[in-house]
Amino acid sequence: MTADITAAKAALAHLDLVDAETPVRAASRDFFWYSPVLKARLDHVTADFVVRPRTEAEVIEVLKACYQHDVPVTTRGAGTGNYGQAMPFEGGCVLHLNRMTEVREIAPGRVVVEPGCLLKDLDAACGETGQEIRMFSSTWATATIGGFIAGGSGGVGSVTWGSLRDLGNIIRLRVVTMEAEPRVLDFTGEELARVSHAYGTNGIITEIEMPLAPAYDWVDIFVASEDFGAAMALADDLANEDGLLIKLASVYEAPTAHAYFQRVRPHASESDHLVGLMVAPHSMDGFVTFLARRPGVRMIYRSDDHNWPRGPGPVFEYGWNHTTLRALKVDPSITYLQVRYGFPDHRALVEEIRDTFPGECIQHLEAIRAHGKVGFAGLTLVKFSTEERLDEIIRIHEEKGAMVFNPHRYTLEEGGRQTVDDVQLAFKREADPKGLLNPGKMIAWDDPDWAYERMYAYPRMQAAE
Amino acid sequence: MTADITAAKAALAHLDLVDAETPVRAASRDFFWYSPVLKARLDHVTADFVVRPRTEAEVIEVLKACYQHDVPVTTRGAGTGNYGQAMPFEGGCVLHLNRMTEVREIAPGRVVVEPGCLLKDLDAACGETGQEIRMFSSTWATATIGGFIAGGSGGVGSVTWGSLRDLGNIIRLRVVTMEAEPRVLDFTGEELARVSHAYGTNGIITEIEMPLAPAYDWVDIFVASEDFGAAMALADDLANEDGLLIKLASVYEAPTAHAYFQRVRPHASESDHLVGLMVAPHSMDGFVTFLARRPGVRMIYRSDDHNWPRGPGPVFEYGWNHTTLRALKVDPSITYLQVRYGFPDHRALVEEIRDTFPGECIQHLEAIRAHGKVGFAGLTLVKFSTEERLDEIIRIHEEKGAMVFNPHRYTLEEGGRQTVDDVQLAFKREADPKGLLNPGKMIAWDDPDWAYERMYAYPRMQAAE
Repeated sequence: MTADITAAKAALAHLDLVDAETPVRAASRDFFWYSPVLKARLDHVTADFVVRPRTEAEVIEVLKACYQHDVPVTTRGAGTGNYGQAMPFEGGCVLHLNRMTEVREIAPGRVVVEPGCLLKDLDAACGETGQEIRMFSSTWATATIGGFIAGGSGGVGSVTWGSLRDLGNIIRLRVVTMEAEPRVLDFTGEELARVSHAYGTNGIITEIEMPLAPAYDWVDIFVASEDFGAAMALADDLANEDGLLIKLASVYEAPTAHAYFQRVRPHASESDHLVGLMVAPHSMDGFVTFLARRPGVRMIYRSDDHNWPRGPGPVFEYGWNHTTLRALKVDPSITYLQVRYGFPDHRALVEEIRDTFPGECIQHLEAIRAHGKVGFAGLTLVKFSTEERLDEIIRIHEEKGAMVFNPHRYTLEEGGRQTVDDVQLAFKREADPKGLLNPGKMIAWDDPDWAYERMYAYPRMQAAE
Repeated sequence: MTADITAAKAALAHLDLVDAETPVRAASRDFFWYSPVLKARLDHVTADFVVRPRTEAEVIEVLKACYQHDVPVTTRGAGTGNYGQAMPFEGGCVLHLNRMTEVREIAPGRVVVEPGCLLKDLDAACGETGQEIRMFSSTWATATIGGFIAGGSGGVGSVTWGSLRDLGNIIRLRVVTMEAEPRVLDFTGEELARVSHAYGTNGIITEIEMPLAPAYDWVDIFVASEDFGAAMALADDLANEDGLLIKLASVYEAPTAHAYFQRVRPHASESDHLVGLMVAPHSMDGFVTFLARRPGVRMIYRSDDHNWPRGPGPVFEYGWNHTTLRALKVDPSITYLQVRYGFPDHRALVEEIRDTFPGECIQHLEAIRAHGKVGFAGLTLVKFSTEERLDEIIRIHEEKGAMVFNPHRYTLEEGGRQTVDDVQLAFKREADPKGLLNPGKMIAWDDPDWAYERMYAYPRMQAAE
């Protein structure tokens, strides 16, 4: 099976198609360079051409032509993913959805939208009805809703609503298959798991129905403490205050704030641990009461009442994956982990792991709900030395009982629970019989017997020049 | 100190004042007759006169005159409380707030309202902005917001938002004191605990600021199961589904539905345990998916799609204290308990207690959040035999580790944790120096050394005729 790029391009020439090297290379990359491991392996990856469909009908045209000519199709939103999700390992076509941005319907509690709509623009549209999306990535200003669903798992808002995979956090997905005659399918309920967080490996999402939450003028807050345990407990306890509505509770071990948060630096010492919060305005009285009960913490910033000469911008742009981004900009040797510290032992486990890697790992926690209980997602900052040491750090985390979603791997399985997702695999067999969608991301498709004892290397990966 | 009723009435004659026996007696009663214990002790209680102020200025007039003439003042909303909260043990004045009903301000996430506004009317006003109150009692159609705050603790909505006493569930209370020159005070933060759930013993609430939640066309649902454990687990697990928004999750042990819920009876057998739910419409797809995963449960009613010849009305009017009311109407020998089964052992404790009183206690559970975790409030139906047996049943509950808030007592302490609330007591000393506000409800005021080993009997209670 050899891709006939020329024939596919000719068949799609009437669409918005680009094949010049520079824009194609730009559209073939995401934030994979967060990881030195992925940076070394994927930097050379590039597609042959990029198509930007304006409608679902054009998506179908692209998939049909590429199917006919055996051309791989890697779908892309804004390319803010961190694991090479949107990178075309075998070249071929990048299907760029940034022209499909229509917000089609807004009703109480729900919105219907095309996948290329920016999270920011979606919230702006929903805001006209006093609503907003339940959760978003810290790349809200630049990321798309389709990319968030196909490549994300949760984020700002997960402290209240849990993760995207939880029942109710996606209502409906409309999906086009990669067949001789592409089918258009509407998925709800159990079917949603087929294509959610599947990196576009088994279908292309063309319409999304999401639940909405009420929109508020969230108050952005930073609280500082010289006691890491006090900072961690504050975030955890606040997330367990049923009457106080929050959207974010992040914990940054010292010296993160002083070393990496440039606009916060004048207000936080090297030994200050920081808590970043978004609190609903009508919960502020209660929050201030909550805070006053706790010794050893001090509010250094609230967006509705402060005297900082230069404001820090949205607090959520310090959290989730933005923390790593800010650290990387100051210290290029920084990389990160994605850890899960589950209720009820989450605090003790964080303390134990914190004691294990002094000077090498810096704790960054996000309070999140899972199965109704608050625990922590850890996006630990790591001073990178070698791949071997990074693997060792991960192994030690796992030995101590923390689950690691390895951000230094490009496959669905290795970045997840290292098990085959039978639902996604079964649907790929049906919806992408030639295996042309985002090749190299689903190990189970390539090598069902893979044992995960070492990093998977996609055998058909483009050769580096 | 002897009340000069005649002088007080004369001073207040220009207000809306009633002293005819029948209306005064009607305004002197609440739902105390839920309890055979309270029914025996309080049935004769009646005030000397009733005043219905139209404004805060009139409230101040009443308090000033009654203070001057040593007349007790017992404040009342709709009188839907169950513990004699609004009953004037020494006679005197009933201050009826049902004319102070103004909704003064509605903003995103908050409302300012007068205390006599019915919960139903408050929700109707807030609904114009797509909002509603976070929680309400099952007496929503007839109860007032002031009565709910002064005499209630939570209810429909507590499965998401916790209890009224939780930080953030009341924003501000404006309170008038009972002094020679009444003061008007605005309470927020820690100060709210002074007068919340204080039965009007230490100040009169004249304005309330509450947080709001988004309003939805909640879908009312009944699910039946022949397996009590499956019904209980369903309510608990659903309340822990972070992505599914619900407002109510009630569990009714068999034969409650068949025996006491007349409109449900044709659809539920004698051995059916019932779960009553309110689910947000945009969570229904997810809920149906959740339900399909569980064996042994069947949805017998959903308000948005059913073929019952006669609908059951709002599902919340089967829950909380309405369950007892419906049972009482069918079987006058029924009374109830108020039990707390705390996370994480709540299910096991319910099962253990259920096994202890076969045929005598029928479990009725409400899923509620406390400190961020879902547990159960039990409003157990009890077939009443004697006061001694009722006390014994309570003692056995407590011995097994369930906390009981005894609904067969009329004092704050005995209906609560049987400890003095120092904050409320201290404020009563300041705000009601003559002890005229709702006398007999705060043991700590009357008898600081009371040991709670037997039921408190207010020594100045009116004599029965």
